[in-house]
Order: sequence, then C-alpha cells, then structure tokens
Amino acid sequence: MCGIIGIVGTTEVASALYDGLTVLQHRGQDAAGIVTVDGAHLRLHKGNGLVRDVFNQNAMSRLRGHIGIGHCRYPTAGSDNADEAQPFYVNSPYGIAFAHNGNLVNTEALRREMFQDDRRHINTDSDSEVLLNVLAHELQIQDRMALTPDQIFKAVAGVHARARGGYACLALIQGYGLLAFRDPHGIRPLVLGERVTPEGREYAVASESVAFDVLGFKRVRDVAPGEAVYLTVDGKLHARRCAEAAVHAPCIFEYVYLARPDSMIEDVSVYKARLRMGEKLAQKIMRECPDHGIDAVIPIPDTARTAASSLANVLGVPFREGFVKNRYVGRTFIMPGQGDRVKSVRRKLNAIDLEFRNKTVLLVDDSIVRGTTSKQIIQMARDAGAKKVYFASAAPPVRYPNVYGIDMPSASELVAAGKSEKEVEQLLGADWLIYQDLDDLVWAVQDGNEELKQFDTSCFSGEYVTGLDQDYLQQIEMLRSDDAKAARRSA
Amino acid sequence: MCGIIGIVGTTEVASALYDGLTVLQHRGQDAAGIVTVDGAHLRLHKGNGLVRDVFNQNAMSRLRGHIGIGHCRYPTAGSDNADEAQPFYVNSPYGIAFAHNGNLVNTEALRREMFQDDRRHINTDSDSEVLLNVLAHELQIQDRMALTPDQIFKAVAGVHARARGGYACLALIQGYGLLAFRDPHGIRPLVLGERVTPEGREYAVASESVAFDVLGFKRVRDVAPGEAVYLTVDGKLHARRCAEAAVHAPCIFEYVYLARPDSMIEDVSVYKARLRMGEKLAQKIMRECPDHGIDAVIPIPDTARTAASSLANVLGVPFREGFVKNRYVGRTFIMPGQGDRVKSVRRKLNAIDLEFRNKTVLLVDDSIVRGTTSKQIIQMARDAGAKKVYFASAAPPVRYPNVYGIDMPSASELVAAGKSEKEVEQLLGADWLIYQDLDDLVWAVQDGNEELKQFDTSCFSGEYVTGLDQDYLQQIEMLRSDDAKAARRSA
Amino acid sequence: MCGIIGIVGTTEVASALYDGLTVLQHRGQDAAGIVTVDGAHLRLHKGNGLVRDVFNQNAMSRLRGHIGIGHCRYPTAGSDNADEAQPFYVNSPYGIAFAHNGNLVNTEALRREMFQDDRRHINTDSDSEVLLNVLAHELQIQDRMALTPDQIFKAVAGVHARARGGYACLALIQGYGLLAFRDPHGIRPLVLGERVTPEGREYAVASESVAFDVLGFKRVRDVAPGEAVYLTVDGKLHARRCAEAAVHAPCIFEYVYLARPDSMIEDVSVYKARLRMGEKLAQKIMRECPDHGIDAVIPIPDTARTAASSLANVLGVPFREGFVKNRYVGRTFIMPGQGDRVKSVRRKLNAIDLEFRNKTVLLVDDSIVRGTTSKQIIQMARDAGAKKVYFASAAPPVRYPNVYGIDMPSASELVAAGKSEKEVEQLLGADWLIYQDLDDLVWAVQDGNEELKQFDTSCFSGEYVTGLDQDYLQQIEMLRSDDAKAARRSA
Amino acid sequence: MCGIIGIVGTTEVASALYDGLTVLQHRGQDAAGIVTVDGAHLRLHKGNGLVRDVFNQNAMSRLRGHIGIGHCRYPTAGSDNADEAQPFYVNSPYGIAFAHNGNLVNTEALRREMFQDDRRHINTDSDSEVLLNVLAHELQIQDRMALTPDQIFKAVAGVHARARGGYACLALIQGYGLLAFRDPHGIRPLVLGERVTPEGREYAVASESVAFDVLGFKRVRDVAPGEAVYLTVDGKLHARRCAEAAVHAPCIFEYVYLARPDSMIEDVSVYKARLRMGEKLAQKIMRECPDHGIDAVIPIPDTARTAASSLANVLGVPFREGFVKNRYVGRTFIMPGQGDRVKSVRRKLNAIDLEFRNKTVLLVDDSIVRGTTSKQIIQMARDAGAKKVYFASAAPPVRYPNVYGIDMPSASELVAAGKSEKEVEQLLGADWLIYQDLDDLVWAVQDGNEELKQFDTSCFSGEYVTGLDQDYLQQIEMLRSDDAKAARRSA
Repeated sequence: MCGIIGIVGTTEVASALYDGLTVLQHRGQDAAGIVTVDGAHLRLHKGNGLVRDVFNQNAMSRLRGHIGIGHCRYPTAGSDNADEAQPFYVNSPYGIAFAHNGNLVNTEALRREMFQDDRRHINTDSDSEVLLNVLAHELQIQDRMALTPDQIFKAVAGVHARARGGYACLALIQGYGLLAFRDPHGIRPLVLGERVTPEGREYAVASESVAFDVLGFKRVRDVAPGEAVYLTVDGKLHARRCAEAAVHAPCIFEYVYLARPDSMIEDVSVYKARLRMGEKLAQKIMRECPDHGIDAVIPIPDTARTAASSLANVLGVPFREGFVKNRYVGRTFIMPGQGDRVKSVRRKLNAIDLEFRNKTVLLVDDSIVRGTTSKQIIQMARDAGAKKVYFASAAPPVRYPNVYGIDMPSASELVAAGKSEKEVEQLLGADWLIYQDLDDLVWAVQDGNEELKQFDTSCFSGEYVTGLDQDYLQQIEMLRSDDAKAARRSA
Repeated sequence: MCGIIGIVGTTEVASALYDGLTVLQHRGQDAAGIVTVDGAHLRLHKGNGLVRDVFNQNAMSRLRGHIGIGHCRYPTAGSDNADEAQPFYVNSPYGIAFAHNGNLVNTEALRREMFQDDRRHINTDSDSEVLLNVLAHELQIQDRMALTPDQIFKAVAGVHARARGGYACLALIQGYGLLAFRDPHGIRPLVLGERVTPEGREYAVASESVAFDVLGFKRVRDVAPGEAVYLTVDGKLHARRCAEAAVHAPCIFEYVYLARPDSMIEDVSVYKARLRMGEKLAQKIMRECPDHGIDAVIPIPDTARTAASSLANVLGVPFREGFVKNRYVGRTFIMPGQGDRVKSVRRKLNAIDLEFRNKTVLLVDDSIVRGTTSKQIIQMARDAGAKKVYFASAAPPVRYPNVYGIDMPSASELVAAGKSEKEVEQLLGADWLIYQDLDDLVWAVQDGNEELKQFDTSCFSGEYVTGLDQDYLQQIEMLRSDDAKAARRSA
Repeated sequence: MCGIIGIVGTTEVASALYDGLTVLQHRGQDAAGIVTVDGAHLRLHKGNGLVRDVFNQNAMSRLRGHIGIGHCRYPTAGSDNADEAQPFYVNSPYGIAFAHNGNLVNTEALRREMFQDDRRHINTDSDSEVLLNVLAHELQIQDRMALTPDQIFKAVAGVHARARGGYACLALIQGYGLLAFRDPHGIRPLVLGERVTPEGREYAVASESVAFDVLGFKRVRDVAPGEAVYLTVDGKLHARRCAEAAVHAPCIFEYVYLARPDSMIEDVSVYKARLRMGEKLAQKIMRECPDHGIDAVIPIPDTARTAASSLANVLGVPFREGFVKNRYVGRTFIMPGQGDRVKSVRRKLNAIDLEFRNKTVLLVDDSIVRGTTSKQIIQMARDAGAKKVYFASAAPPVRYPNVYGIDMPSASELVAAGKSEKEVEQLLGADWLIYQDLDDLVWAVQDGNEELKQFDTSCFSGEYVTGLDQDYLQQIEMLRSDDAKAARRSA
Repeated sequence: MCGIIGIVGTTEVASALYDGLTVLQHRGQDAAGIVTVDGAHLRLHKGNGLVRDVFNQNAMSRLRGHIGIGHCRYPTAGSDNADEAQPFYVNSPYGIAFAHNGNLVNTEALRREMFQDDRRHINTDSDSEVLLNVLAHELQIQDRMALTPDQIFKAVAGVHARARGGYACLALIQGYGLLAFRDPHGIRPLVLGERVTPEGREYAVASESVAFDVLGFKRVRDVAPGEAVYLTVDGKLHARRCAEAAVHAPCIFEYVYLARPDSMIEDVSVYKARLRMGEKLAQKIMRECPDHGIDAVIPIPDTARTAASSLANVLGVPFREGFVKNRYVGRTFIMPGQGDRVKSVRRKLNAIDLEFRNKTVLLVDDSIVRGTTSKQIIQMARDAGAKKVYFASAAPPVRYPNVYGIDMPSASELVAAGKSEKEVEQLLGADWLIYQDLDDLVWAVQDGNEELKQFDTSCFSGEYVTGLDQDYLQQIEMLRSDDAKAARRSA
C-alpha cells in the first residue's frame, strides 16, 4: 500500500506532485518523498510522516524542475524504518530515482544475485531498492551509446524476466525522462493522464485517477499489464508491452478497501463497485433471512459507508450514522500512576446511543481482517443498548496473507484463517455474521468492465497468480507477525 | 469556537484531558493547552497547532496532578497569535489558571477598568485574559481569610455583573479547586459529568458531552445559565446560581454546525436535531416545488450529511455521496514559475462524475456564510455534468455577525447580508437555492427539549440577547474583515 | 551566576540586548531570555540553551520596543529546570518583568509570607520569582495614583527590608520604565552605562562592563550598594540610595574566576587584578621554595592564563601553553557494547607532551573547588612525562559554600573543606600544592581601588556578611549535593 | 579544510568517531557526518552544523558497527550547500562510503569523463563525489571475483593516474574494509594510529594526531605520499605505495594556521613550529629595527598566541593578552528601525584598554588574508589609546589562491595580491607592518624534521606543485569571489 505519482510537465512540477501525493495519502501515511530533475541534478526530499509534515517551503523551493516523481508509503513486510522512505536513488548508470507500489515474492533470490553477480549493494530491507537495482543493472548491460526507447524497453523486459510479484513503478532516468511500468499481471494499479497547457502537452502517471482530478489532468487510460510508458524530457510518449501475455488479474482489494471511492481503476468506478457490493450483500441477507427484523443499517466509517447505503436502500431499512469517528485521535501517553486507559477503539469511534437503544442493528464494514476492532465495535453497540447486533462484511472471509503489496497480518493473525464463518461469528460476539460471497464480490467489480476476466483474490481464495515458492508463506509469517515486528523494532 | 474541559480526579488527569481535547478538537484547531495542579505548582503546557502536535511525552510527563483543565482554540476577533493560546495564568491572588469559550461584547470597557482602577496588566488582545483578570480582581476583594465557597460564588456574581457576552469558563484556583461557570443567558454550552472509580467519585466539565463518552464519564446535566460549579481539591461539589434570572438562550449554531452530532446539548441530541432539520427542509421543498425532479441528494461533507440523509428519505430520492473530501490537504506552496494553481476548493473536495452526469442534483450544506465555497461547489457540480444544480441550506440566511464566540466574518463579507434569497441564488449560480425557515430551525432543535423557549439566533435575526453598544458592530466590522486580519498579521 | 542587561534606548533594543547577552554568556549558559516593552504589551521570549540557540529571526522580530531587559542563567540551588528561565512576569500591579543575578538566604521565609499574607502564588523554586513578588507587593501597597519615582524608591526600600542576600535586579514596569537595584552590601555587580545618539541619550545597566564595549556604550559608574536607578520610558534617570548604610562587600570570586578579564568591576580591572594575583603567588613560591627548579609554568585554560603569565614573568620561568582546550566538546553518548570511555577531562583538555617530558612543571589554576578535575589534570601531566608536577591555585582553599549566587557544591563536596593544605596535596596527587593567601588575594583586588575596604570572601573564610539563619547551611547541603540534584531530576 | 577520521575497531566505534570529530572540528564547522558498517548495511547520518548539533542519541544508536568513518566540512569552492555533507555513498560496486579532505584541480575534466565514459551521475558540485566515482569506477573494472588487496591498490593507482590535486581520502568498502590514501605529493595530512585492547589491535586514520590523543590511540606514522593503507574488516593492515615517486610537498599552511598546536604532522610538532615562527620573526624585527620601542606584544587570539609568546620572549618585551575573544558570538539579526550595528569584529573581539593606552604595541597574527579584519583590529588598538600600532604576520604575504583544499578567497580579494608590503601597511593603517620571510617560515617547520625538503607554499609563492591548467585560476576567481558566492546562494 503505497501511492506513486510522476509528472512530465512544461513548468515547475513540485507543487503538483505535492498536491497529488496529498490525495494519494490514504494509500500510505508513513513516509513521503519527491524527486525532481533540475538540470544535471536530481533534487530529492523525503522523510517520515504525512506529506504535509515532510515538506516545508524550504524543501519545496529546492525541488526545482519540470519532471519529477513522488511517493507515499505504507510500511510492508520488513520496511518500517526511516531510511526506507522512497524515492530511492542509484547513481550508476545515468542516475536513476525510483518509486514503487507493490511487493515481490522473490526478493531474497534477487538480493543474492545483486550482491554476487552484479556487485550492487542493497542497503535497506526494502524490495523497492532491489527492484531499482535490477532495473539499473538491466540498463547498464544495454549498449553504451546514447540510450534509445528500444533499449529502455529491453531493460524493462529484463526486469519482468527476473522479478516476480505485483508492482507499479516509476523511474526518473537522469538526462532521458520518466519511465513507468506495471507487472505482467497488472496486479497493482497505474493510470496515465494528460493535460494540454499553452506551453504544450503534459503527462502524468499515478496509482489512482483522483490525483488527476485535483491537478486538472484528464485520465487517458490504465497502463496495461506488462506495459512500459516512457516519457522523454522533451515530452514525447513511447509505450510498449514488455512482457509476454499473462493473465490480467488486478487486485480486488483496491475496490474493497484500498482505493478512494472517486477513483476509476481499470475503467471501473470504485464507488459504483462498492454500491454493487452493498446490493449483493442485501440480496444475500434477504435470501438467508427474509425476516431479519433489522431496524437500522449502521456503517463503520469511513470506507463501508458506500456499501452500507445501497444495502440499506435494497433492504428498505433506515441508514443511520450511529458511529462518529474521532478525526483528531492523538498518541496514547503512558503516565505514571494513572487509571485504566480507555480501550483503543473507543478513542477512534463514538456511538450515538439513541441509534442503538432497543434496536436490532446491522453493522456494516468493508472487510474483517484481525477481527479485534470488529469485536470491540460489536461490544460498543451492545453497550449503547442494542437489542441484537448483526455484522456484515462487504468482502468474503480474509483467510490468506496478501503478498502483492497490501499490508496484512500473517495468516495466524487473521481471525478467519482456518475457521468457519460460524466460528468467527462466535469469536466476534455477533448475533449474526454475514460475509459477502466471493462470486458476488467479483461480479460487483466485473459489472463495471466486462473485459476483466480475473482478479487477484488471493487473500480470500489462497490462489496466487504468480505462483509462490514453497516456503515463502512461512517466511512471511515470521516477518509479519506482531511479535516479529516488535523484536525488529527493539533491535 | 473553542473547546474546554476540566477534571477533578482521583488519579493523574493529564492523559484524560488530552484525550478529551482530541474529541473537542473540531471546536478549535489553532492552539491547545493544559494546566494541572501538582502540589504547590501549576504545570502548564500550551502551543500553536493540533492537540496531537502540541503535546509530546516530555510535556505530558510534566503535567502531573489530579486536577486540571484543557483548552483548544479557534481564533476569534483579535486573537490569532501565538501568545494567546490558553489556559492563561495570573499569580495574584492565589494563582489562577483560566480557560474559556465565548466572547464578550464589552471587552474594551473592561480592559480600561482593569488598567485604570485595578492596575492589572492585560498583555494580549484576548478577551479571555480580560475575563480572567476580572475574576482575579473579584476574588482579591473578598475577605482575606481562607476562601469559602460562598466567597467564590460572590466573586462569580461580581464577574456576571461586569462582563457582558457569551462565555463558558473554567478556572483552577491553586490550593482550592476547579471553578466552572456559564454566562447568565447560557449562550455557550457547558456540561457536567461524573465517574465513580474505586478511589472515589470524579467530576468533569466540558463544552460537549462527547468528551465524557471517550473518557467513560456519565453526563449528569448541563451547567445552568448563570450557575457556578465549584469542585474542591478533595472532590466536593458546590453549585449555585450567581446571576439574576435571565432569558435562557443557547446558541442555535451549535446544532447547525459547531457541535459534534454525537453530543447532547441542553438535553437535545445534535444528531436528532439535524435529522429534523433535513425533514423540515424536505417538507418546504415539497411545498414549494412538488415537481422538483431531483435525481439525487448530495451532501457537502461532513456536517451536512445527517440533514441530507433525512431530507433524501422524506423526498424519496436517492442519497448519494457525490463529493469526496480530501482528508490530507496540505499547504499551498508558492513556486517560482509554476503554472496556475488549482482552485482552493478542488484541493479539498472531489466530485464523482458518475453521480452528476445528466442529473438534477440537490446539494445540501449546513449553512451558507461567505458563499465563496458554495459557489465553487456549484460550479464543480456543473463541470461534473449536472443538468441542474439545486442548493439547500439547513439553516436560514446568515445575515448578521456572531458576537458570542463563533468565528464568522463581518457583515460585509456575509453573502446574504442585505440581500434577498433570489439575489444570493444568482450570486452563487444555483438553479434553485432553498433556505431553511428560522421557525423550522428553531422547531427542529426545540422538539428535543420543550423547556427551551428561546435561542440565540442573532446571526439569522440580528437580535442580540445581551444587547449591544451602539458602535460595537462597526468595531467588529473593522477587526474581522479579511483586510483587517491581513494588516494585523503583517504588522 | 547569571548575567543581566537592560537598555532604555531611542530605537529598537532587541538586537543590542541579544549581543549584550552573548558577551555575558560566560555568566550562565543554561537558559536565556529577553523582554521588551512594545506599546501596551510586554514581549517575552526565553528558553533553555545558549543565547544563540534560544533566539531566531522569528523570535527577534516579535521583540519590538525601545526598552528591554535580558538574562542568561547558570542554575543555582533548586532552579535547574525549564520553567525557570528568566525574565519572570507578574501582571499585577502594572505588569512587571524581572531578571536577577544573585541568591537570597531567607527565601523560604519570604515564600511563606507571600503565600499567607500576600496571597501571591510562587509557581517555581526560583528565588527570582520570590524577589519579583516581594517587589510587586511593595509596589502594590503604594498609593494607587500614578506611580512616582518616590514611590518606586520606597518600594525598593521595602524589598531591602525584607530580602537578605546578594542580588542585582532589573525590573521593567509597564507604562513606567526600567528599575535597577543592588543589594545593600553590593555583593553582586551592576554597572551603569550610557550612549549619546542623534536621537538622544540612551542608558544601559549590566552585570559587567564588557556588555557596554560590544554595544558602544560608555561605562559611567557602578550602581552603588543599596542604590536604585530608575530610568523612565522617556529617558530620564532617577537614582537614590534605598537602604541604610551597610558594609560594602563585593564578591571577590568575580575577580578570581567569574568575570571576564576585560571587565571593570568597582573600578578595578579584572585583568590587572589577576596579573597581581599571579605576582603575589610568585612571591610566595619564591619565599617558600627559592630552589623550586620549575622548568615551565603551564596554565589550565582559559581563566588561569592571566595569573599564570605574570607568575611566570616574576619567577623568570618560561610560560608554556602545555594544555590545549577542545572547544567543541559534545555530549557523551551511551552506546551498547562499546569499550571504556575516555575520562571526562581528556575530552576537554589535551596535553602537548613535548612541554612536559622530563620537566618539573607548575600547573596554575584560578581556584580548586571539588578537586576532581585538578586530580585528573595532574595525572595527565604525569602521563605526558613530567618529572615533577607542582600545582598552584590563584585563590585560597575553598572551604565553605557560596550563598550569594555563585553555583558551588555543598561543603561536603569541596575538596578543601575541613582539610589541611597538605591533605589536599595528597588527595590531588601533586608533588607540591601551593595556595594563594587570602590577604594576598584581597590585596590583589584592592590595589586597584583603595576605597574598597572589604569583600565577600565567605567561601574562603566562612564569614557571611549578611548573617545566616542557623540551619541555613544544612539546608544548602541537602539541596546542592549531587545526590540531591540527581534525585530531583528523576522525580 | 575538512577533518576526516576512520576506525577499524573491535567494539562499537560510533562514539569514538564522534569524539574524534569534535577535536577535528576546527578543520570544518559547516557540516558533519558518520558512516558505519552494520553487518550488510551501511549506516549513515550527516547534516549541516557542528558535530554536537548534527548527532543526537537517536542518530548515534543507529550507527552500529565496528568500522566507520567520519567527516567534518569547511566549505570550499562550489560546495556550500546542504546536500554536500560527507560521507558520500555509491552502491555500485560493492557499496562504498567516502570522505575526503582536499581539492582537485582537474575536477571538470573528471566530471565530464564520468558522465560520458562511465555513465556515472554526479549529483552535487562537490569534487569529493567526483573522486568517489573515480574510485568506484576503478574498482568496478577490476576482475569481478572477490576483491584482493592487490586489486584495491591497483584501483588506487588508477585514481592517482586520473586525479590531480591535494587529497587525503577514506573509503569504506562494504564487505571488505577501510581504505585510506593520500595524494602523490602528500599535500594534505593523514596519520595512522593504533590501540591494543583486550579484544585485539585497533587501527585509526585521521587528519591530525590530536584525534588519537582524545581516543587513547598511539600515533604510529604519517601515511606516506601516494600510499594506500587497507584495513580489512577482520583487522589486518595492508599498505602499498600506489603512485610513482613525486616531490613530497606537505601544505605549510597547516603549520601556520590550520592544524591544532597539539598535533604532530610529518613528525613535526605544530606547537614547536609556531614557537620557531615567533623566534624568527623576533630576529627579523631586531634586525630591521633594533630600537623598536615596543611596550607590549599582543596576540590576536587564538592561533597567534603561540608565535606571539616566543616572539615576546626573544624581544624581551611583555606578552599581554590585550584582546579578549567573545566565545559565544551569535547571529546578526536585522531589525526594522534599529540603529547602526556594531562593526563585525567588535562582536568577536574586545580590547582591554589598559594594555593599549599610551603604549607602542605589536599586534601579532598568524597570517593576513583579506586584511579586512586586521584593519579593524588595528583601528580598535588605536581607539583603545595605543600610541603606535605595529602589526606582525607569522606568515609571508598571501598573494595567490590555495587550490589544494584550503578555503581562501580568490586572488582579487587577497589584500597582498599584486601589492608591496609597504602598500599593504598603508591599506591596513599600521604604523609598521612586518611579514615573516618565506625562507624563515620554511625553516621553522623544517627544523622539526630534516627529511622534509619541500612544502606546498603556493599561496605565498604562486608555485603549484601539481601544475595547473592554463585557465584554472580564472575559473577559481569566478567561483570563489564573494559576488559569485552570493549569486549562487540566491539562485
């Protein structure tokens, strides 16, 4: 879960990259960075924190140039420290700055090759740095004369041949231009936009189309799976498929939770897809329990609101915002001698008691991952006086880890892993727990673009479109568990 | 627009004050502060910024003590600089720390009296500092022996006799306890809560009851107009009316916009009041234009969502979240040589085109103040392809300044001041503009508590319950206009 | 040990106060602050750290005004935390900002009176805050009509009647001017300067005359013991003795160590006084050990350099800078698993071996307090190859605590307390230890101004000119010992 | 003017590097950085400011490892911005961190080669980054199998073949060890030290031997001109001459001004060399003007103190510290409406008038570069009442720019460039100006080590040991003039 954006403009681009990152911030609030090309120099500024905290006037003033890329990061396995803010940079060959959204499943093998065969030092645990060095190596072995689009596309093909996973990448090649490419299965999203100005045509590439809306760019199309788009410093666009045909399998979790509702991904409106998820779920409820007796449909804010509203419409039951989110939650301070602290979810949500008292309520969330928050919310509904508490998930049970760039806990920490829906219902303490069927979820998205035949649904189905090495999931288990993270941090 | 909270606890209170301030943060994001009583010392920490940015572990560790008050500030007339974060402190008599929500209409006269008669120096432009010194003076002229509850209440009566305006106040008196009081008309809100712990009973007072929800306190009642509540260091509660009977006139704008929906103010649920505003508005729409042809009701997020949903229900029209808020908006940087910047509202809101294209949409906002944002939003709806754009305000036209502590522009900057609704409709560029009637607004709130006979509705009606000096509104005009603010800042 | 400066100017004074504080910085590097009078406002900025770190352009820009005072602090008993940076401020009566150098010996009694009789809250452990409140109270009980010079001098007389100790004070009285006064014995220094500008005459008062040199002011005279100088906002000077005649006893430690060599204090050049200390010490050496066989005189930098050079001249022995000071010493970091850290003094001083090898060296320091540093330095000289290491102190043995504002350890931590010179010699490991005689020290200073009949020499003689309450020294013992400080810090 | 230090230790080295940098801080106060080898990672922390300000506990804790290098920077031509703090890093081949003291005279040509032939991107204007990339390239073209000492020395030979100038370099090669080398003429200093610990032998290399003193290392020898010392991760030392024999010409300015007095450089004590400079100068004075009538010799602190003291001894005239340095000088703030600011030198130095009044004084400085400070100091002496002011420079007239790493202004800004000594005397306003003869200066240093046959004395003689391209000095003129710097900064 990261957001990326790149612009080849006709005037200064830093503030456009900044604004673009602020609307991609939901994809990662952990760190942010921008690189621009300022003549012979690459200007880089990055740091931990929100976009609005990382950049100040001083930093922005240094980020001169008409071409640049930006990144905001959500920490994935192994990369939760300060050095690993993106973009990354290598100076050989050419000077390349690189930002990436996704995750590789053969990082360790690539890391070994880099070290032994290519004598390249990878200084962080980030697989973005690995991917950058694979690209750098593939560019380095091209013919030494001036770099042609053809050579660049060959280098990308070389990357695809070595890297396995989900990835959407942006690379600035000093003296040449901006290169954008996407994994052969098109797991992670990447869209292309343009804007015509008096000074000429400008191009942008970004994780989500919302970035174009704020900047006044027009969405042109998605970058195709395996395709590379090369935008030269003088504003020419070159594009080519650089991988053999493979199953197109965009990540379905973007629609469920990750993307903003106002984004178009693969020509599907995320907002509309969520409305359809709500409708399908309503149909299942009516099918399974026509006399449900639900008095109110109450979303867990913010993502579930869209699906919950269409669900309420179809059920013909009032839609009520019974939970109010605390938008300004701060840190939890440990004070000597203080009384018990309020439970964590109470600091984030507050129930409007009147909407619960003596009612049968259906709480709706986009998905259930660990289950700990859901359990506390169900208890809050009971404390607020609900007669019965039903709980609906707009997505099927999450039973398997995500390995393509969405930060999810290891299998052992997923509440539904290896459990029946009934068992989860009991664990959460709901009077009734209802999950979306996977087919219905797929339909809800597919209905927006019939050309989409398949999705990455691995966290629901356990089927990984890239294939996985035998022991890969065990490694993930070890890296991602909370204990493992705590140990790493204290080291 | 400020938030205040005070706690007399049995254990350390700093982190409870912190958590309380974070849920009152919507009342003021400009500055924050906390004072605690640590033995013979008052520990104070305050600064500009959000609660989560002002306090760190180090600051929190110093805020020892079982009694304390906190404040978050929205700048009102004349007080938008760094020195004026609250609480304020004077050391004579006793040592008093003070935090306040509201505004006085006779500040200048009081300021003069302080200087000439009481020889007290007021070092800021804040009327909170004036009010604190009035209180300090009234306490100082009491008999010099140990301070009794009776003397304290006499001092509050002395404050009411001198101060005119809307105010809810918290004062820590070193060695004695926490004093809370509210203006004789009860314009600004103040609620009392309690919590029983193994160590004994704890009390809290706060601007809104949501602060109690997050802390596990129970709302007991509103502090009455003109009443003072004195909580001693050893946990005794004393309460007394300290002003002669006056019209009870709570600020109706708290229900329209300012308060959180999950708050109870004067025994009225803000959420329910907003639902009723939507219903009343729907009835007016059906009355005035039965064949409205509206395809979708679209709220301007976030406050208007509640009224818009009941409005849509009553109209029988789909409720659609056609605007998505950018939650992470950052600063606007000025870059040399950059192209035109996107209009400000586009950085804050994004339209989902599919919800607008070829539709007649009804946009709903809680109120219309300057009108500049509304105008841009209406244009956004048109740009997104709307056939017709109707605009509804859940409140009547705002035509007069607020002088009791809500930060509103001067009359000359209010779009509806001196204009007919038709004229405003044209200015905003709406195909139809519909305002709530004031009677309907009053009913929507009153329906929750029939004992409320009157409200401060001055910004709609121009009637000021405290009376105003002749030239007061002109002074305000000069202080609050944007030009005046800009001049002050550059000084 | 603090530095104070105040200016009544004809133009902006903030940057002059800043420059003045930087040359008084040797008197206190712990915290710094400046207050100016900006119309009806007092502008205050203070914080922990060096002057150059506490102030930035932003802070300086706010410190507008033609009158102001500044302070730099060395922590004395009980006041080593962040709240206690000076100047302090009380708002009643008039608004008074206050900065002070010195220490009271009856603080606890005054603190009690303040609380019980005057109902004034003292929020810190600083005796400066106590002294400010005594002054405030004495001003408050003057006749309420406009404050006259006569009333101000009466108030100062009231302060002298209640406060006992050494103190040099600056107070800004809002609306009136700058008041400077000094304790009746004149223990702590305070000088008056002036500058004639095209806009008129300007006055300054400061701890040392060096502050005038950097600002282009001319030293006029010392403020007399018990005298108050009142400089009005419009530049008039009023002066009066406000205490009955008392023994004039300036602190002799200012000449030994504290003051800068280029200062004139009580019409005595500090530099010349130190040269005379060196001469007297040389005479004693020749008297006691004519065949001393010393090859080189080596000062411990920086203070001792002056005395050592005249000492070497009189002895006819080469003066050699055998120790080089590390000017950029940083913090000591605790690293896991690291080897032994270098001894602290080695991080501050480095020996030039060539100056020590096979030589009999005489190390010269200004004084010996705890003795721990001296012991390590003697060992360094031996490690560098010295044949014999003699050690001379330009001051007599320090055997008693200082209670008038010089930060010295408690008696139990003074190496010479209760010990003979021979015993100290053994403890330090010197081959010969030679101390200045007290009479010689007194002569060395007195020779510059024959009107000086007496000095505060209490840390050498145990005689306290103000008298002390019986248990005062025990209290000091408990407050100042390292253990006590450590306990306070961890509290 | 930079300081460098590297350690191959047996335990954690970060705090030793930190302490070492603080005693090398006089060589550069502009920026500082440390890199350590922590397993497979290089840990880097650097920033603008003093060592004590750049590093905090958090940064230090991350700098784990037994091997590391550190750097403190004085800005030289073209490199005065924040990105250019050292060490620098390239990840290909191997991962190399690099820190350097010195300057190249063929940077531009190398920069071009890097870009065109080696496709390496140089992102800053620093010649250290150029030198690092030359080294990286030379290592990359070695045989690809595991790197042997032989290959490393070949790579250094390759660097010497391409680079021209004065340079002392430290490089960490990830997985291999620490490489230290010095230019073929040995212009810039580099010393080798060792320490035996219970865990084994540790090595250090540093710009000056004082760094060893503070760390308890023993100075072993200087790294020879053209020599490379390679210290492996497991503590083995390999050393080899990697350049053909060339004239050994250490920079004489290190002895005049740059180095600390307690350093040994090329087996010459800097302190002793300065004493000899004073003696020679005294002889010249007596030769040229036996009846000089000088009453006092007064050094300009701090560097000149050593030479001045021996000069005074030889002349038989009192040595007096008539100038006191302000150690805490802060920034100069620009305040609206303020009066004239004190001249810059008065903020740094203060004269003790008594030492000047009616005397003939000889002021002594180490050298005269721009002359602006000397001129102001001479005026200060006159203002303090001096009858006659003589001025002596322990070095000859500086008439040519330094191109080997000492930050000196361009020729046009050197007061003595193209002028006779008499003309300079007039410009400075001295009654007599006396310069050291170059032969005497050379003798003063050479006398400490007779094997030194030649020095780099280019700034006095205009003879550059490496040779210079024809237009090089003009380029320097353009880069270094104040106007050029101002223009660059505002760009």
